[in-house]
Formats: sequence, C-alpha cells, structure tokens
Amino acid sequence: MLPKLVLPLLLGVLTSTAALADKVTTFTLENGLEAVVIEDHRAPVVTHMLWYRIGAADEPLGKSGIAHFLEHLMFKGTKTVAPGEFSAVVDAQGGDDNAFTSYDYTGYFQRVAVDRLDLMMKMEADRMRGLILSDAHVETERAVIIEERAQRTDSDPGALFGEQRRAAQYLNHPYGIPIIGWKHEAEALTREDALSFYRTFYAPNNAILIVAGDVDPDEVKAMAEAHYGPVAPTPDLAPRLRPTEPPQLSERRLTMADPRVAQPYVIRTYLAPERDSGAQQKAAALTVLAELLGGSSTTSVMARALQFGDAATAVYTSAFYDGVSLDVTNFGFVAVPMPDVSLAEMEAAVDAVIAKFLTDGVDQEAFDRIKRQLRADEIYARDNVAGLARTYGAALTGGLTVVDVQAWPDVLQAVTPEEVMVAAREVLNRKNAVTGWLMKEETDAEAGQ
Amino acid sequence: MLPKLVLPLLLGVLTSTAALADKVTTFTLENGLEAVVIEDHRAPVVTHMLWYRIGAADEPLGKSGIAHFLEHLMFKGTKTVAPGEFSAVVDAQGGDDNAFTSYDYTGYFQRVAVDRLDLMMKMEADRMRGLILSDAHVETERAVIIEERAQRTDSDPGALFGEQRRAAQYLNHPYGIPIIGWKHEAEALTREDALSFYRTFYAPNNAILIVAGDVDPDEVKAMAEAHYGPVAPTPDLAPRLRPTEPPQLSERRLTMADPRVAQPYVIRTYLAPERDSGAQQKAAALTVLAELLGGSSTTSVMARALQFGDAATAVYTSAFYDGVSLDVTNFGFVAVPMPDVSLAEMEAAVDAVIAKFLTDGVDQEAFDRIKRQLRADEIYARDNVAGLARTYGAALTGGLTVVDVQAWPDVLQAVTPEEVMVAAREVLNRKNAVTGWLMKEETDAEAGQ
Repeated sequence: MLPKLVLPLLLGVLTSTAALADKVTTFTLENGLEAVVIEDHRAPVVTHMLWYRIGAADEPLGKSGIAHFLEHLMFKGTKTVAPGEFSAVVDAQGGDDNAFTSYDYTGYFQRVAVDRLDLMMKMEADRMRGLILSDAHVETERAVIIEERAQRTDSDPGALFGEQRRAAQYLNHPYGIPIIGWKHEAEALTREDALSFYRTFYAPNNAILIVAGDVDPDEVKAMAEAHYGPVAPTPDLAPRLRPTEPPQLSERRLTMADPRVAQPYVIRTYLAPERDSGAQQKAAALTVLAELLGGSSTTSVMARALQFGDAATAVYTSAFYDGVSLDVTNFGFVAVPMPDVSLAEMEAAVDAVIAKFLTDGVDQEAFDRIKRQLRADEIYARDNVAGLARTYGAALTGGLTVVDVQAWPDVLQAVTPEEVMVAAREVLNRKNAVTGWLMKEETDAEAGQ
Repeated sequence: MLPKLVLPLLLGVLTSTAALADKVTTFTLENGLEAVVIEDHRAPVVTHMLWYRIGAADEPLGKSGIAHFLEHLMFKGTKTVAPGEFSAVVDAQGGDDNAFTSYDYTGYFQRVAVDRLDLMMKMEADRMRGLILSDAHVETERAVIIEERAQRTDSDPGALFGEQRRAAQYLNHPYGIPIIGWKHEAEALTREDALSFYRTFYAPNNAILIVAGDVDPDEVKAMAEAHYGPVAPTPDLAPRLRPTEPPQLSERRLTMADPRVAQPYVIRTYLAPERDSGAQQKAAALTVLAELLGGSSTTSVMARALQFGDAATAVYTSAFYDGVSLDVTNFGFVAVPMPDVSLAEMEAAVDAVIAKFLTDGVDQEAFDRIKRQLRADEIYARDNVAGLARTYGAALTGGLTVVDVQAWPDVLQAVTPEEVMVAAREVLNRKNAVTGWLMKEETDAEAGQ
C-alpha cells in the first residue's frame, strides 16, 4: 500500500479511465479476427499475443488435457518453420515467448523489439493453420505433458486435492475437470485428437490478436491484414456452449490425507457468479468482499480475527475470487491453523468470523481503504503493458468486451457496502459449497468428520 | 427363504446351469443384430424385447436426458404406424408394452400371445429407422418428461439427494449425470437432438433382440430375418467409449436439508468394480458381501447389530450392490436412525459395525445361508421368463455375454469367505466414498459437520 498522503495526488491525475481508453483501439478483419491495440510508447518494445477462444472447458468428452497438449504441439513446426524453430527465432531476436492454457482460452505471446513485430505476426499466422505434426513429435510431447503433470500435480498433494475439490464443486460443468487433464486421459491423447481440435478451433474467427507497446494502430492493422488476413476462417463454427450447472442442493465436504502434506489447511469454495458483459456489479461486489474478508492486507476481517493476538488460531488466512470467467466461478477462503489447532476448530473459527461479518456488516473504514487500494492497483497495472495485454486477452476470451474492461475500475469504485452484503449473503451459502480438509495423516477421529 | 429341508431337494434337481443353458440360443443377423431366444413352453405367450446399446451415460455433453426423451418419442409413429398407435395395437391384441432407459441401455418390450410375435417384430423393426417426429410431438413429449421429472425427482428430496450424491460420486464418468437429465438441460432438448441421437444409435448393429416364451428358435430366427434383416446398420459406428474415473483421493460428504424429508438417513456409496466378461469373481464376492452386511434377511450383520435389541439405533438398514454395469459402479449402505438417534451417531454406529466385520471376518453359518438363498433366488428367477429376458438384456448391454450370465450362479456359489473379506477391504475405502446425510431441517450444529 501507498502512504495515504500520496494516494489522493495520484488519483487526481487519473480520475477516470478515459486516459487509458484513449490508448486502446480495436479492429476486426474480414475473416473474423478481432484485434486490440494498446499503445505504450515508453520503450521500443511490443507484446504480441494471439488468444484462441478455446480452452480446457471446451474439450470433447474423455479428451481432457487436449487444449493444453495442443498448446505444446504448436511449437512443432510448419512447412516453413522447423520444429523448435519458432522459439529459437524469438530468442535469436532477443525476445521472449511462451504460451498458456486455461479453462476459457489458449494463448501465445512474444515480447520483442518493435521492429520484429512483423516477423512475429508472420510466424504466428503461419502456425494458425499450417501446423505439421509427426507421430514422433506427438509421442515425445505427450511424455513432456505427463511429466509436467507429475511435477505440478501428482507430486503435490495440494494440487491433487485441488483437482478433487473442483470435481466436487462442479456437478455438471467441465470446470470440474483439470486443465492439464486427468492423467489417464492425457496419456491416451493422440495426434488425431490434437489435429481435430486444432482444425476446428484454431482459426481467425476464433482468435483475438492483442498488440501492446510502441506501435501505431494503423500500422498494426495493415500488418495484421497482410499476415492474418489471408488465413481462412472455420466455416459454421458452432457457438461456444458448455454444459451448465444444475441447482446445487447439498453442501459437500472432502477430506484428503497424504504423508507429503507439510501444512494442513481448510479450504472452502462457493459457486459464485462471474463478470458478465454489461453486468459486472455483482462480481465487483464479490471482488471487494474477498478483499474485505481475506485480502492481501493484514487488516482483513479474517486476518484480524484469526491471525493476531493471544487468541490467534491461524498462521495464514485468505479469501479469493476472480470474476474473469466465461461461466460460473468460485468464491473461496483458505485457513491454515496453528500447530495446536485442529482443522475442525479452524473451520469453526472461520465460520464464526463469517457469521459475525454477516451480522455486523461492512466496516466503513476498511471499505474505504480497500476502494483506494483497488484504485491504486488499477493505476499500477497500467504501467505493465504486457499485463494489460493479458488482462484484455483473458477478459475477451471470457465473454467480456473492451468496454467492460475499461468500465471495471469505475464499477469497482461504485460498489456500495450494501451491495457487498447482498452479494455475501447470496454467495456464502453452503449448499453451493465444497469444504476441504487437507491433512498430514489420517486419524479415524479427523477423517470421520 | 425356503424351509431348510426343502432346499436341498430343489438343488438336487438343478445343480448346474446346464438345464437353463439348453433353453437359451443365440444368433446374429448379417446387419449385426444380435439375438437371444429363451424357450419357455409353459404358456402360449412371448416377451419380445429390443435393447439398444445406448443409454444415459452415452449422451453428448450438455444433452442429459436425451436417451430417455428419445425413448418417449419412439411412440410418436412412422410412415405406417400413427402416433400412439403402437401401444394401441399391442393393447388391442391383449398385450402389454413399455420401455425403459438406464445408463447403459434403452429397451422396448411387448408381452403378447405367441401368434402376435410377428406383428411385434414388424412394428419394432419399422420404428428402428422409420421414426417420424413433428415439432408438435416433440414439444408435447418434452412437457411430459419434465412433468415426469417433477413427479419422480423434483418433488422428492430423496431423489434430489440421490442426484447430488451421484454427481459427487463420479468425478469424471457420466454415471454422475441423472438418467432423466438435469432439469435445465432436459427442458432445452430439441427435435434435432433426438433425431441425431436416434440416427446414430438406433440401428441393428447396436441392438440386441430378446425373445422369451413359447417359441421355436428357428422360427424366431426366420421371423427376425424377415423383419429386422432388411434394416440398414449404422456404418462405422464408433466403439462405446466413455470418460473413465481418475483416482479418487478424497472422501466426500454431503448434507441436504429439506422440509419435505419425512425420515432422515445416512447413505454411503463406495466406488466398486462391476461384473466384467469372463472376470465376475470380484463382483460375486461383493454381491455376497452386500447380502452379508445388509441383505434382505433380518439376520444381516447390520440388522442384527443396529435394528434389534435394547440398544437398537436404527429402524432400517440395508447394503446394496448391483454388478451389472458397463463401467465402474457403487457398493453402498443406508441406515435410518431411531427418532432419538442423530445422523452422526447413526453413521458412527454403522462404521463400528463395518470395522468389527473387517476384524471378525465372515460368520460361516451366515455365509452358508446366503449361498443357499442366492441359489434359491436363481432358481426362482427361472420361473419368470420376462425377468430372465430382462436379465439377459441388461447383461448384454452392460458388457457381459450369454456365457457370463449362465456362469453367474456358479461364480456366486464359488465365492469363498476369504474372497469376500479381500473385496470388503478393497472396496470399503472411504477415499472412494461419498457419505450423505439427508435431514428434515437444517440446524447449524448438524449442517456444519
């Protein structure tokens, strides 16, 4: 946090989002490719990102992990770019590149000197339709993703527990399936699975181009027309419809014990609405609620009640919510008890804090402080143009618009304490919740409850 | 149960399944239709069944309920049979007809005088490919299935709870989705959804004909060739592959409170192996285990420990297992407490009974009694030829063969107490389990644990 004296001055410089909006322009190519250009002329660099509106939650039944697997395979080359050459070229030009897969998107990015933008577009457009996959490359890369899963998930009881929790949180929606894929399904993914997914979903009419940096929007458009313009769209691309949740009528509880657990904890997630285009108020209230209850500040409701003083029961508490999601998302908290506090006691203590909060309502001083902090966060975020590019990419593939992204800081600022309490009462409903206990080792007394 | 003196005599008459096997014959038509004929000449009637290897667990993503909806729509007529006429004809001939949908199959049957078999085959073969659906019929019938759901599920907290429990039991497999469909998905099913499902899966190479009654197998074959023979198969019908379960690592617990609950109960289901073709031993051990722990007899382990005597805590207990399933199934128990016994106490009492059983092992006398009872059940089952037809249909659409069905009584008789205990230790693992508490009304103390 900034010292309080400085903050009002900063806010005076940028009291609305107009200054940012001026620097963001959009266009759409005839083949359906949407583009967002974010100008930032402080340094002669550019972030070039291509986002596909396809992610782990769009996978065919039984093919979990295919979106992420394809992301890896996209570096296996085309007619004009050899396997591995893509990243080697970026590296040789002094740039960085990478890719990422989530439930709602798959994205590719390069950060390079601005005069290399043309080359990046040429290569990215080339692999949008021109990927060539040999059986050998598919075999090798499948071993890589299985190893990635082994490292990140199978060797980490917290990650395994997270998978089990998500599967219990969603009764019907594919958000309950891990992004990296269930191991037994990821192991069985084939070249044909990858190509079928690729041919349908990697197309200009399913992609968003984000260019952020020291660029001129007209030049970016001309360049995009030259490189992406000739790429054929997927005809009759079906609307992006996923199975949705039925009413959740039962509180769910999970326990997992693993000898590798260093630190037991209680985690609870409630099904919660996401940010919807033109209707972001409830998500904004939940964003403020998460900060109030268990934000990064040590003055959050949970931290003050549980982490400090003689009666402290927790070594760590946090509440979390991220509203950028195409479909229904989670609001949650985690609490790590002191060594002599049981998970049952920890959970009861958190529930008591939540119950008291629902009775007492919002503390106005804390509320004002969080508003200032959120405003400051937004201002700092603008200094990171690559981060801004990512914000737009995630929002646009998550069903939001440029207008929604630009309105978000004001929507956050307009949240009232009453809206926070209405949202809290709606979302903190245990019929929609999964409560998990991750334990070091199982004892009958603990496991039974 | 039969008096003990009579039972050995009966067993003497039918000591193997040979007598039954003699009466069952099979054939396959060139278009792929498999057929099973069960002879029973005691009365001049016949059960004609057509089973499709398609059920609720084979539905496309987000289209839950389509298998069941199509089952209803199959009565809407063809070029030669008017809407509703099918059942009217059966009725006019003095017969009964009906249809049913489960996870692994959809089946149609008629029971008529044997000289009407030809007519039944003609009509059933006609609607295998010739269904005609008007928008009006689809609209009307969708209202019917939604009303069926309202009656059977939405107005019944136990059924709603069962849906929530199944969804928590399966992390990935579609057995977690209700057969009748999630309400919001069933409401959105269209004519095109039904026709697309129908055109692919209603075909002779995806069907099993079962004819049971006063028939001659050669005559049945000639009749089947005449009526079903000309029906075109679905070319390149994909193998029946469903998403399978990842390792289940977390015990799950559910609570639901509903003012309509007349009688609270504890239910727990463990993921359990199904009967596999040629490998039915473990399922046989689980079948015996369910009878031992909580079978229909009042002398089951759970009944004796919990339902009788001064220390009785339960008004009802039961253990259940049905191994006929294409994919991984459930072993479970339910316990209904006395009015002054809490669900926590009830569950702890059942767990104590299970723990004691796992320590003490099988009581030989109870084991022998259950073996005799299972043998008697098999013998009585042969008297019900319509039931036998259903047994074969469910088994064959569940991945078993005629040989498996005929071997089953002997596999059951070959189960040893040691096999029961091995199966019990493997399956009664709470990492694979969901425990549910259905309550009349929620109180903080109960709901929290």
